[in-house]
Order: sequence, then C-alpha cells, then structure tokens
Amino acid sequence: MKAVILAAGKGSRMKSTVPKPLIRLFGIPLIEYKIRRLKDFEIAVVYNDKKVAEYIKKKFPEVKLIYNPYPEKENGYSLYCAKEFLKENERFLLLMADHYYGEKFFRKINDVKEDNYLFVSNYCYDPQEATKVKVKDKYIVKIGKELSDYDYFDTGFFILNYQVFSYIESLLDKEKIKLSDVMQLLANEKKLFFKLIEDIWLDIDTKEELKKAEEIIRKLLIKDTDGIISKLFNRKLSTRLTKFLVRFDFITPNRFTVFSSIIGFLAGILFLSKNYVLAGILTQIASIIDGCDGEIARIKNLSSKFGAVLDSVLDRYVDTFILFAIFLSIEKNIYVYVALFLSITGSILISYVSHLTGIRPFFITRDIRLFLVMVFSILSAFWIYSMTMLLWILGIASHLGVIYTLLKYKHK
Amino acid sequence: MKAVILAAGKGSRMKSTVPKPLIRLFGIPLIEYKIRRLKDFEIAVVYNDKKVAEYIKKKFPEVKLIYNPYPEKENGYSLYCAKEFLKENERFLLLMADHYYGEKFFRKINDVKEDNYLFVSNYCYDPQEATKVKVKDKYIVKIGKELSDYDYFDTGFFILNYQVFSYIESLLDKEKIKLSDVMQLLANEKKLFFKLIEDIWLDIDTKEELKKAEEIIRKLLIKDTDGIISKLFNRKLSTRLTKFLVRFDFITPNRFTVFSSIIGFLAGILFLSKNYVLAGILTQIASIIDGCDGEIARIKNLSSKFGAVLDSVLDRYVDTFILFAIFLSIEKNIYVYVALFLSITGSILISYVSHLTGIRPFFITRDIRLFLVMVFSILSAFWIYSMTMLLWILGIASHLGVIYTLLKYKHK
Repeated sequence: MKAVILAAGKGSRMKSTVPKPLIRLFGIPLIEYKIRRLKDFEIAVVYNDKKVAEYIKKKFPEVKLIYNPYPEKENGYSLYCAKEFLKENERFLLLMADHYYGEKFFRKINDVKEDNYLFVSNYCYDPQEATKVKVKDKYIVKIGKELSDYDYFDTGFFILNYQVFSYIESLLDKEKIKLSDVMQLLANEKKLFFKLIEDIWLDIDTKEELKKAEEIIRKLLIKDTDGIISKLFNRKLSTRLTKFLVRFDFITPNRFTVFSSIIGFLAGILFLSKNYVLAGILTQIASIIDGCDGEIARIKNLSSKFGAVLDSVLDRYVDTFILFAIFLSIEKNIYVYVALFLSITGSILISYVSHLTGIRPFFITRDIRLFLVMVFSILSAFWIYSMTMLLWILGIASHLGVIYTLLKYKHK
Repeated sequence: MKAVILAAGKGSRMKSTVPKPLIRLFGIPLIEYKIRRLKDFEIAVVYNDKKVAEYIKKKFPEVKLIYNPYPEKENGYSLYCAKEFLKENERFLLLMADHYYGEKFFRKINDVKEDNYLFVSNYCYDPQEATKVKVKDKYIVKIGKELSDYDYFDTGFFILNYQVFSYIESLLDKEKIKLSDVMQLLANEKKLFFKLIEDIWLDIDTKEELKKAEEIIRKLLIKDTDGIISKLFNRKLSTRLTKFLVRFDFITPNRFTVFSSIIGFLAGILFLSKNYVLAGILTQIASIIDGCDGEIARIKNLSSKFGAVLDSVLDRYVDTFILFAIFLSIEKNIYVYVALFLSITGSILISYVSHLTGIRPFFITRDIRLFLVMVFSILSAFWIYSMTMLLWILGIASHLGVIYTLLKYKHK
C-alpha cells in the first residue's frame, strides 16, 4: 500500500526556525516517527521547506519527495500534489507529518478493507483548535473546526481512494483548499466512513503540546514489568540518555545491548581487582543503561524478537560474571561456595521461571539485584563480610523468588 | 455436552477373559482413555459385563452407568438404552469403548456446530472388518461393512441428536439393530454428515491390533525434541516403566516429577561422598525416569502448564546440584572454579535459550549431558582428572550450545 504524508504546513504557532515536520519529539523528528512505522508502505512526502526534503533524502532515500510550491493553499492542495504518485482507483493512507499517533493507529490500518475512512478519536488535547466530526450510523456527516455539535475529533489519519482527487479538482478555483472541505464533499455523498481508535494522538502545534507528547512517550517507555528501582530511578536517567541517543542511527538497539553488557563485564573485572566501590557504581550504571536498548527500539520501531532474546541472555552472562568475580575476589570456604552456587543459579533461574510463567517476583527483579550489588559494594569499605553477605542475600532472595513464582503460577 | 460410550459388546475375537473395554492398552483400560479425554462431558457408559461397571464406578464415580440386558441385539440397541440419559433435541457425542482415537478426534468435537456427524477416516488397520461410508457433497449416502465402492471408513465417533432414537424405534421389532443400519436411515434422508479426521484410530478387535496400538502410543510418547540418547535408549526404558506406572492413580505426573528429582538429588549426594561410579549410574537412572512424568501425563490426559514448568525448574536444580556436588568433591583451584562457573551457568542457560527461541542445540541436550556425567563418573575409577574434565566439557559444550542457538535464531 502507498502512504502520503503531508509535510508542507508552515507551523507558525511553534515559533521555531526548524520546519515543523523536523521538530524533534523525544530526540527524533516528528515526521520520522511516521516513516519508521510505515515500513511496508511506499511513502511519498509532500513538502515545501527544502530542509525537510534534505533530511528525508539523507535518512530515507526510498521515500518519494513531492514539492508543493503553494503551501498557503492549505493541506487539501498539498494532497493534490501527490496525485501523480497514485494510480487510478488506488487505495492509500494519508497522514499528517506534524501529528503524533499511538501504535494502535498503525496496527488498525489492515483492519480497514474499504475506502475513505477517517480514524477518529474521543480524545483531543486542544479541542478548540481541532477539527471535529459529526457521525450518523457508520458515516461522517459533518466535518469542520467550527462544529459545535460533534461526536469525535478528526485525527488527520485517513484511508482514501484516488477518487478523492476529483473532489479536490472541483475546488481548484478556490484560494485555499482545506482537507476538511474536501472531506465534507465526500461526507455529503455518504462516502466518508469513520473508525474510532482508542489510543493517544496529538496535533503538535505548540511547544506545550510538544512537551505533553514527550511526557506521553516517556511513560510508554516504562514497562509494566519494571521493578521499583527501575521505575523510581533507572528509567528517569535511561530515558534521558535514550532521548539523546536516538538521533544517531549507528546506535542500533542490538549494538547498544552489547555495549551495555560490556559495561557490566567491566564492572565484573573491577570486582576481580577488588575495586568494590567503583565496581558497584559501574554495576549500577550498567543497570541504568540496560534500559536504553529497549527504549531506542520502541521509539524507532526497531523491536525484534532476536533483540529481546539477546538482551535476556547477555543480562544473565553479566549477572553471573559479576557474582563469580565477587566470589573470586573474596576468601573462600564451604559457606562461600554455597553462597556462590545459590546466587548464580538463582540469578538465572529467577529469569527462567519468569519467562516460563509470565510472572515476575516483584521483590527481586534485576534492577533490585544490581542495586543491592552497588549498596553492598559501597558497604564493603566499612565491613569485610559485605561481599559474602551480598552473595547470600542474592542467593536466598532469588530462590525465594523462584518458589514464589512457582506457587503463584500453580494457583493462577 | 453429554457423551455416550458403548461398552456392551462381547469382543469374542480377543480371546480374553477380561471384557473388551477393560483390556489394557499401554497399561490402562481402553474405555479409560475416552473417559479421561472427555473431562468436560457428562458421560454415560452402556455396559453389560458387571466388571466394566465395577471398574468405572470405582475410578470414575461421576460417570453414569446404563445396563444393557440384551447385548446380542447389537450396538444400535445399546445406544437405545441411553435414551433416558438424554433430553429431547439434545446433541450428544457417541463413541465406542473398544476403539482407540487419536487426540485430534477430541479436539475437533467443538468444530462441529450441527447435528448428526460421523467422524470418518482415510485410514483403517483392517479394512475387511471395518464399516465403510460412501459420501456425496457433504452427506453420507451409504454406510455398511459390505460396501465395495466407498470413500472413507466409519470410526464409530459420532455427534448425534436425540432424534436418532426415533429411527432406532422404527427398527425395534428386529432381532439385531446395528448402528450402521440406524445411520443408513439418517443417510437416506440426507441427515448424516461426515467430517474427515486426519489422525490415527483403531478398532481393537484382536491381540494383534492391541499390539499395533501399543506401538503407536509408544511412538506418540517420544517427543520430537528428544535428544539422541533419549531416543535410542532412555525412552525405551521409560515407556516400559510408564506402562507399568499408569495403573496407579496416586502416581500423578507432578508427584513423579518430584520423585525423579529426588533420585537426581540423591545422585548429587553420592557425588559429595565421592561414590562416583554409583553416583554416575544413579544420574543416568534419574535421566531415564525423568521421561515418565510427561509420558504418564500424555497417556492419562493429565498434562498441565504447571507440570511442564515444575519439571523444567526441578531439572535445572538437579543438574546444577550434581555439578556443584562434583565441584565440592574434587580438589579446587582457579581452573576448577572457572569450570564450575561455566558448567553451572551453561546448564541453565542452554535450557533458558531453548525456551526463549524454541531451538534446541541437538549436540548438548539434557539426556546427553547426564549421559556424559555417567561416562566420566565411571572413567573416574581410572583417571583422577575425569571429574574436572567433565565440568570443563559440559561448561564449554553448553555455552557453545547457547551461542549456536542464538546464531540460529538470528538467521531464522
């Protein structure tokens, strides 16, 4: 399927020298979100500002660029510029470069089997500025910014047919051709349907809306399964780092997974050399940046099953290597052997049962385990048995976690 | 839904004093297979031999028993005996106590939304003795043992409506009422449909067929994912043991999982006390009987997700405990520490990545690992470094297995 992204708007309300489609939302340009989420589509971008064209040409050479010399003729005319890109009777996706759409919008595209659908929402951040729609049965009957009696908000996310160009052509003598006026013509003929999408969307017109969108994305990056240390501390830092990292395309999620594991192994080497405080702090740093790979993947739509497996497996190697390094660095006796055995087996088995059962023991998630490593490493400056105690605590707590998970699964 | 199982047949061709429904197939009576696979059904069994009634009353008190005083009137009359069990217009399942049906038969029941279906098969072990059907469009047009022109075989597995009793009533003045004669009446009125099931079924009439069925079940118990030692050796013994164990209802799969783990832990304790040869042999025994829990579960239809998780987790505990016990029993140095670390982490991680990716590294499955433990334990009588070498080999091989799995998953 083909997709047309309208990116010729001026966006004067943003008060920025950067053209609106290139304004960075959580580190990457607004328009890039859409291009990345339409992987299987043949995309055309209608632009006016050369900077937009340059950026896209460099990053996404496969995207077709269509110049609109008259952006003041409004978005209906912008769409008309894409006419040559499409074939007669072809169905295509139309969306706005400066809107942020939740994942559900993209997932629902394939559910629509007919032409001329507008994805609508119950939600709008700024109702005054939004285009509204009035519906009847399955049709949209009225569409416009000024509607006082309306049902939903227009999200600017359409599935249309080539026929729409003939409606635009009937308006070509006008000075401005608004997309909503074109859609009203379709609505008049009961040719415009709607689909309600229950996910976030934002028309990013102002700096305030941009900030709001960043908060939403930050929340999306925090997983439900995150432990308490991760939620309260690690994610606050990792999301900031991610916001910086996403602009670099050579930092792929998998490469960053490997990089953060190397930091973890370095912490292990510091333990071997008995630099406990430094090692502990580096362990905590490894724990923080461990969140970035998944965050980068989610923002840039680069999540993969292999990436998730690689991350899980490397985490287990890092964890057990740190525990083994601690063991090698301290005086040994049978109790230390047992503590090593319990902590190493526990640190893998806790993740093993989580994967098998889908249940996470909240009291001994990885962020908590690595946080304990840091705390006891710092304590080691004052207490010689601190590292032995750490192995015991991690060993016992993680096996209690395994038992807790099994019991919970049994009674589920 | 209700189910009627016909178990009043004489089964004289079997030449056995045990009534046919009670003849043990792989350790449990033929009729028990069906009762166990119809867990959510309200079941009635039509019997003639008191032994059948006694067995079912004791084992499955919730099953309704219906006495047929005239088994010589054949199976159509047997079905008629169940009339009171059913309500007018009720849909019910009808099957034969002395047939063995593959799992697909039971899984397809819910696919049938209408009345009067006969599950048919392309396959028959003894075509001469079988009832055949001739079909046209979606209907059965002819049914009988003597058909020379036929499409499928009648498996004796029906989904019927109460209305069938009125057809039986029209035949009540006859000396013998065969089910196929009743079905022919339905077929004449285009009221009997068919559903082709592509799974094994057997009408167990002779000792030869019983043997054939046992072979089929033995093959079903061997999993595709079994390693080479398991396929060639362990399963041959475990299935024999399972055939014996299934008759005891107190031996549930989960209880046997715990029991076989205890044998594994005992092997570990023998390693601690340096009884290597004995410990090695006990490890191999633990490996063999580890197969029984799943086999019992599959035969008795007692498989559960919790059971699978419990088995996996206890296996990991047994494996790592044995490795740790070997470590404790030998002289220690830094190389032994590393070997312990590699073998313990590898033995869990290899299973961890298998679960995450669905890929099993064929060269280091659990049966092979435990077999190596036995081999090196016996070698230890002649070679003092045997146990250290074992830890190294298991450690290196299992981590190679992890890497192999990751690479294979990446390129899948």
